[in-house]
Amino acid sequence: MITPDGIPPLDRDVGDRVRGYLDTLTKPPGSLGRLEQLAISLAEMTGDAFPDVTPPAVLVFAADHGVAQEGVSAFPQDVTAQMVANFVAGGAAINVFARQIGARLEVIDVGVASALPGEGLVIDKVRAGTANITRQDAISRAEARQALDVGMRAADRAIDAGCRCLIVGEMGIANTTASSAMLAVLAGETVCRLVGAGTGIPESRLAHKTDVIERAIAARQADPNDPLDVLAKLGGLEIGAMTGAFLGAAARRRPTIVDGFIATVAALLACRLCPTARYYLIFGHRSCEPGHEVALAALAATPLLDLQMRLGEGSGAALAFPLLQAATRMLADMATFDAAGVAAGEPR
Amino acid sequence: MITPDGIPPLDRDVGDRVRGYLDTLTKPPGSLGRLEQLAISLAEMTGDAFPDVTPPAVLVFAADHGVAQEGVSAFPQDVTAQMVANFVAGGAAINVFARQIGARLEVIDVGVASALPGEGLVIDKVRAGTANITRQDAISRAEARQALDVGMRAADRAIDAGCRCLIVGEMGIANTTASSAMLAVLAGETVCRLVGAGTGIPESRLAHKTDVIERAIAARQADPNDPLDVLAKLGGLEIGAMTGAFLGAAARRRPTIVDGFIATVAALLACRLCPTARYYLIFGHRSCEPGHEVALAALAATPLLDLQMRLGEGSGAALAFPLLQAATRMLADMATFDAAGVAAGEPR
Repeated sequence: MITPDGIPPLDRDVGDRVRGYLDTLTKPPGSLGRLEQLAISLAEMTGDAFPDVTPPAVLVFAADHGVAQEGVSAFPQDVTAQMVANFVAGGAAINVFARQIGARLEVIDVGVASALPGEGLVIDKVRAGTANITRQDAISRAEARQALDVGMRAADRAIDAGCRCLIVGEMGIANTTASSAMLAVLAGETVCRLVGAGTGIPESRLAHKTDVIERAIAARQADPNDPLDVLAKLGGLEIGAMTGAFLGAAARRRPTIVDGFIATVAALLACRLCPTARYYLIFGHRSCEPGHEVALAALAATPLLDLQMRLGEGSGAALAFPLLQAATRMLADMATFDAAGVAAGEPR
Repeated sequence: MITPDGIPPLDRDVGDRVRGYLDTLTKPPGSLGRLEQLAISLAEMTGDAFPDVTPPAVLVFAADHGVAQEGVSAFPQDVTAQMVANFVAGGAAINVFARQIGARLEVIDVGVASALPGEGLVIDKVRAGTANITRQDAISRAEARQALDVGMRAADRAIDAGCRCLIVGEMGIANTTASSAMLAVLAGETVCRLVGAGTGIPESRLAHKTDVIERAIAARQADPNDPLDVLAKLGGLEIGAMTGAFLGAAARRRPTIVDGFIATVAALLACRLCPTARYYLIFGHRSCEPGHEVALAALAATPLLDLQMRLGEGSGAALAFPLLQAATRMLADMATFDAAGVAAGEPR
């Protein structure tokens, strides 16, 4: 597993150079706001004063959750496998958005309950779904490590294929339940502050979902100071794989765009395992799911977009990608005041 | 000039059809949030259930402001012409962002103070800059109408060239001063609530800028119920041209993305002239300029992006364009539950 030593520090020197260079470009200093901060961050991550984020990779990890049998989702568990087939056929939202940004899309079965045909996806299954966390640990500690490895391998494949930025998403019916349970333990937060409609359960079932999560937390007694224990006892295989992908990308100095609630819980787990992983994370989208706010706060993160979305799959992260691209192109392609013969403004 | 009768109403029927169709696509109903609303709006504007926004056009209107001589900007007035040259050479932020989205970029000199070489830009000059509004009306009422016409012509050229979405921006040293004066009158707001650093004047000069605007408003006595009077007495040529472009695009049912503070004041003017113009406006970006909040509220508008930018040129609108594109592609390219063999969720 990646240790804190395995993740390189940010290159603050190149960041300082980029910060200075930005003020020579033909725009009032600081007037491109977060785009300028993004350019500096991407330079610090990659060590390149003119970083490039294309082509991006989209990794979608899919797995099932035994807790789905408690009726916490608006969709039956079979939908995980059906949506994986939809990803393979190219018909899901993430397919559309991945095509728009020219991304290499890979779908990884890390734990779908049913056996899937291997064509068009990567089968790297740790086991056929988690156990029902109200009754048993989700997975074993060894399986949790294996899930991390699945994600690291996927990050390596994407980077080896030449991808310069990772977008990480998931599919797994009932995974807001698992993520809420993990977050409640990791952040020391009450469940009722975290739980939302997920993919759209009726209001009347929210209390039931909350109760299921509270019972699971009480029964599992995960150690909040042991991230792997939280993943094993309450988590999900696709959540662990996302955590691994974040760590794997950070180890190779590639920026990763974090999607919504579930991805952010995986990111929190990654940062609890290796705090320096935080340096390489960019947050794409603020989800409607109430727990997202709590997870973002725990990571001191402010997403780039806020479009009232709650889909997952990596969709919010993919939509944010053009902003990273704009930041890098601004840096590479804008003229300086000197070169353009434009008078610089007075200092503020 | 375009009258309210000249702007077609939205096609609510096609909007309703799209709303229903969105719920058949393989995602939880409503889970793509504002992207779904965008898809519906674009369908209602264009009358097309599968609207297309590509290719977009970027129109950048440039003009000078006599009030620049009051020292309200961090940049000398010459920078307007210098930046137009930079646009023509392709080195400004809007050039970079226009290239990223494959836009047809046109720069229109509607009132730069100096004579510019015509190559690479459209010279459609009403006059060589406005008068200093602390001493005289900015322009005459006839010139205000001419500025609107410049914008309408530019919108027509873009639409005739096949562009399906307009992005409208500006360049004009001291134009936050003119826009703040116009907005104070149009919205009945005190100047100190509107005025910010613009392109970056020092804090110490903000009080001076506020005073200049207050003196101009008191001296000009523009009629808040006569939008053309406000434009003529306090406005700018590029602001009037933007207003005209909004009206021209609306008359031809093309969506337009409004940029930051100055563009939003122009949009407010367009909607005061023709309230139905509002239907065709999408707001791209929330600016740092304090007056933007007031202008947005007057239009009941919520921008798509909030990236702490304050550049203008159409930059914030151009950055928002990929979200419109994503909305249309979601509609056109996503599979339905039936076609993909995915079980739909239970109704909420």
